[in-house]
Amino acid sequence: MMTETMQALRDLQKKLYAFQFALNVIDFDAQTVAPSESYSGRGEALEVLSSIKYSLIADPALPALLEKARGEERTEQEAAEVAELQRMYDETSKIPAQEYAAFVKLTTAAVNAWEKAKAASDFSLFAPYLEQIVAYRRRTAAYFDANKAPYDVWLDQYEKGLSMAQCDAFFDQLKAVIQPLVKEIGQRGAKIPCDFLKGTWPIEAQKMLSAAVMKLMGIDERHCVLSESEHPFTTEFYKGDVRITTHYHEDDMASNLYSVIHEGGHALYELHMADRLQYTCLSGGASMGLHESQSRLCENYLGRSLGFIKSLWPTLTELFPTQLAGVTPEAFYKAVNQCQPSLIRTEADEVTYCLHVMVRYELEKRLMDGSLAVKDLPAAWNAQMKELLGVDVPDDAHGVLQDIHWACGDLGYFPSYALGTAYGAQMMASMRKDLDVDALLEAGNWAPITGWLEERIWQYGKEKTPAQLLKNACGGEFDPKFYTDYLVEKYFAIYEL
Amino acid sequence: MMTETMQALRDLQKKLYAFQFALNVIDFDAQTVAPSESYSGRGEALEVLSSIKYSLIADPALPALLEKARGEERTEQEAAEVAELQRMYDETSKIPAQEYAAFVKLTTAAVNAWEKAKAASDFSLFAPYLEQIVAYRRRTAAYFDANKAPYDVWLDQYEKGLSMAQCDAFFDQLKAVIQPLVKEIGQRGAKIPCDFLKGTWPIEAQKMLSAAVMKLMGIDERHCVLSESEHPFTTEFYKGDVRITTHYHEDDMASNLYSVIHEGGHALYELHMADRLQYTCLSGGASMGLHESQSRLCENYLGRSLGFIKSLWPTLTELFPTQLAGVTPEAFYKAVNQCQPSLIRTEADEVTYCLHVMVRYELEKRLMDGSLAVKDLPAAWNAQMKELLGVDVPDDAHGVLQDIHWACGDLGYFPSYALGTAYGAQMMASMRKDLDVDALLEAGNWAPITGWLEERIWQYGKEKTPAQLLKNACGGEFDPKFYTDYLVEKYFAIYEL
Ligand SMILES: [Zn+2]
Ligand SMILES: [Zn+2]
Repeated sequence: MMTETMQALRDLQKKLYAFQFALNVIDFDAQTVAPSESYSGRGEALEVLSSIKYSLIADPALPALLEKARGEERTEQEAAEVAELQRMYDETSKIPAQEYAAFVKLTTAAVNAWEKAKAASDFSLFAPYLEQIVAYRRRTAAYFDANKAPYDVWLDQYEKGLSMAQCDAFFDQLKAVIQPLVKEIGQRGAKIPCDFLKGTWPIEAQKMLSAAVMKLMGIDERHCVLSESEHPFTTEFYKGDVRITTHYHEDDMASNLYSVIHEGGHALYELHMADRLQYTCLSGGASMGLHESQSRLCENYLGRSLGFIKSLWPTLTELFPTQLAGVTPEAFYKAVNQCQPSLIRTEADEVTYCLHVMVRYELEKRLMDGSLAVKDLPAAWNAQMKELLGVDVPDDAHGVLQDIHWACGDLGYFPSYALGTAYGAQMMASMRKDLDVDALLEAGNWAPITGWLEERIWQYGKEKTPAQLLKNACGGEFDPKFYTDYLVEKYFAIYEL
Repeated sequence: MMTETMQALRDLQKKLYAFQFALNVIDFDAQTVAPSESYSGRGEALEVLSSIKYSLIADPALPALLEKARGEERTEQEAAEVAELQRMYDETSKIPAQEYAAFVKLTTAAVNAWEKAKAASDFSLFAPYLEQIVAYRRRTAAYFDANKAPYDVWLDQYEKGLSMAQCDAFFDQLKAVIQPLVKEIGQRGAKIPCDFLKGTWPIEAQKMLSAAVMKLMGIDERHCVLSESEHPFTTEFYKGDVRITTHYHEDDMASNLYSVIHEGGHALYELHMADRLQYTCLSGGASMGLHESQSRLCENYLGRSLGFIKSLWPTLTELFPTQLAGVTPEAFYKAVNQCQPSLIRTEADEVTYCLHVMVRYELEKRLMDGSLAVKDLPAAWNAQMKELLGVDVPDDAHGVLQDIHWACGDLGYFPSYALGTAYGAQMMASMRKDLDVDALLEAGNWAPITGWLEERIWQYGKEKTPAQLLKNACGGEFDPKFYTDYLVEKYFAIYEL
């Protein structure tokens, strides 16, 4: 029997669930279907709903209730719920309600402005919003820890325990391997024929490919559907209703293909939470980094493997007979793994991907410590891209305006993409001890792979910390070397170094 | 300056707006995009959100606040807000919170069951839900007026002042004209060639037609987009974001065409509320009947006119050159106005349409007075269809399961379709005194027509009662004779009687 205290906390969690459900549906709709000039009324509604949600979790009576619950007998899950609610209370109650609501409204308007700015490739349309967002993030960090640098506060919010010191060390370790590897490939690597990836890939056939890939991954269409949006994303309404999006470009089939696999990885994670976590605060990915570890594991370690491409080959050649005439799975594998410093993070190859993250990390650091003004951001972006990737940015749409994250108010989120990528490599190394992953992929048999991940990670939601989950899956602490080793091995083979 | 009391009431209205926004987005998403097995978590969320919305309007402190506001100086609009909030309080506070929340959950599950039942053409899958819905409606009617027949209670809720006595008189008046007219057409009417309407109408071209029609109607795509759903509908999130849906059938282009015009009529009404009503309880159509008057006015009195078809002819023949080869606008006009007793209400012609409504009205009466059990409904449906329309119903999908309304809990809504149709005819008669409607339609010039409606009806939202609006537009009381006269005149001409 559940105690009365715990029952009250469950009621609260159900309410929080309902508000989050509404906020997520509204956001999903805004990004996929909503008419272009509809943000003002949506912003008003979001402000009210977010305020009420805020007051539910920042309720001054909550700490006493949580204290009482800690004094009672609880199951392990109940203890985890109490701990998570305490964390949410601590995190939320520190920001005054009005400031929080105004920020929600600001980001709604900012996303709208960002869309227009990106379409017009005109940073000035977005700059006033970003200025307010940066100011808010710099100011409100002090509510959490006035002695910490603001950026350290936000890094820690996105990935518990993360700091600039850790990021610096992590990125230095990556840079030390990646930059020489990129140079090596450029100077001595075998040439990889990729021309066939250009050309025309009819959207209708691409849509059929998306459906086939989702089926192959074992994504249950009764609980997960694919929509379209400018920037692919995943959102979970609850474990029985997860949405993923993609975008279609007639001149680029790989973009959709790997977006679907990436977002499909996020979706699989959400679809496999244990039922017992449903409607509690423990449902959902353990952290941003953990979530990205699953999506990038699916996208890269599974989706960009030769075995997977072989299993998909009959579908690919049936849907694109002329485009793939004379192409072998091996040639396709090399082409979609081509290493080529480029402009867009989400289209980047595995080797250069983390360099894109580092560009954002460096700029966020400077925005947050005040040494970089928003108005100078495009120039700083272009300089960073030149320095780290050696590319010239032709315009803001292909530069500083490419990602939605800053418009959403997320400053400190990007490092989790690199962290997650490295987590995933370590998990794969562990999985390979238990399963013949390559053979399973080639046979189109994802079930043992997803079963392995479900058992060790997905089912737990936020019940375990990212560190516990990593240990659960890998039997050890986080070590980025698994990732750099993987890159070196894979790319030495591809480029015959 | 607004009084403090009124400011408090504005805050409440803003909150109610935000909850309604969320509920509408969730419902729209459910009907257009949501995966098939996603209703359980949605039901849980809707139950919580509806409960909170309920407690906002059924707040025991509200009557005193409203009383205070009535004692203060107010603008005309403020007075209308106070009156509408009082009406909402009276209506809502009568149903106990738990019963209300359970009903919301029930109807979410019922819509899901109805979809499956309709797809399988198996009424038994839906019957258990409908039984609970009927029981709820019969039971809770007593909360409003224990001395009134339950069905009278609900008729009055959907259209203020409406009763079975009035409906009986109204429908008798229609029947006295329509049934002889249908007979006359069947026995003596000229044959109308309609075969060309069958055949194949590519969906992509139909989509382009939808866009062209919305443009012609003056629907601003920055604030209104078209989606797809099983059953076309309109939902307004606020005046800056209105959604309409349609369905596409390759073998039937008229179904989509007239769905878009019908829902477009609803949308125009919502898009033209006065700005000052935004975020107040006065935004939205004055009544179900008034809303239907606008949609059916657009669909039939404008959309099924020869002038409109002439203006659309270049688009139609460009999109469907082979399908319409050798067809004249006049022939098309006659074909889409063919009078033919049939199975599906939403596809019915103007003459027989109200007979479909009468079938539902008769059955609802009996369900609500207990003389008809849900299990006997399919047989009773089929018998009514035979009696009123002379058609044999082949299966439940084309019979009792065709409409979503009962699954949504709406019993007493259908008569408003017939009422609205008659309201619209009266408005058209009045509009024709001011405007050369036929010439405007033929010129594709909708602006004076929509301007006329905006000025007299749309801008006011719920600020005026339906009777006031009708008077505003027509200068007199409601009189169904405008409608029956219109039918007789139009159909005598079409069938050369
Ligand atoms: Zn991702
Ligand atoms: Zn309608």
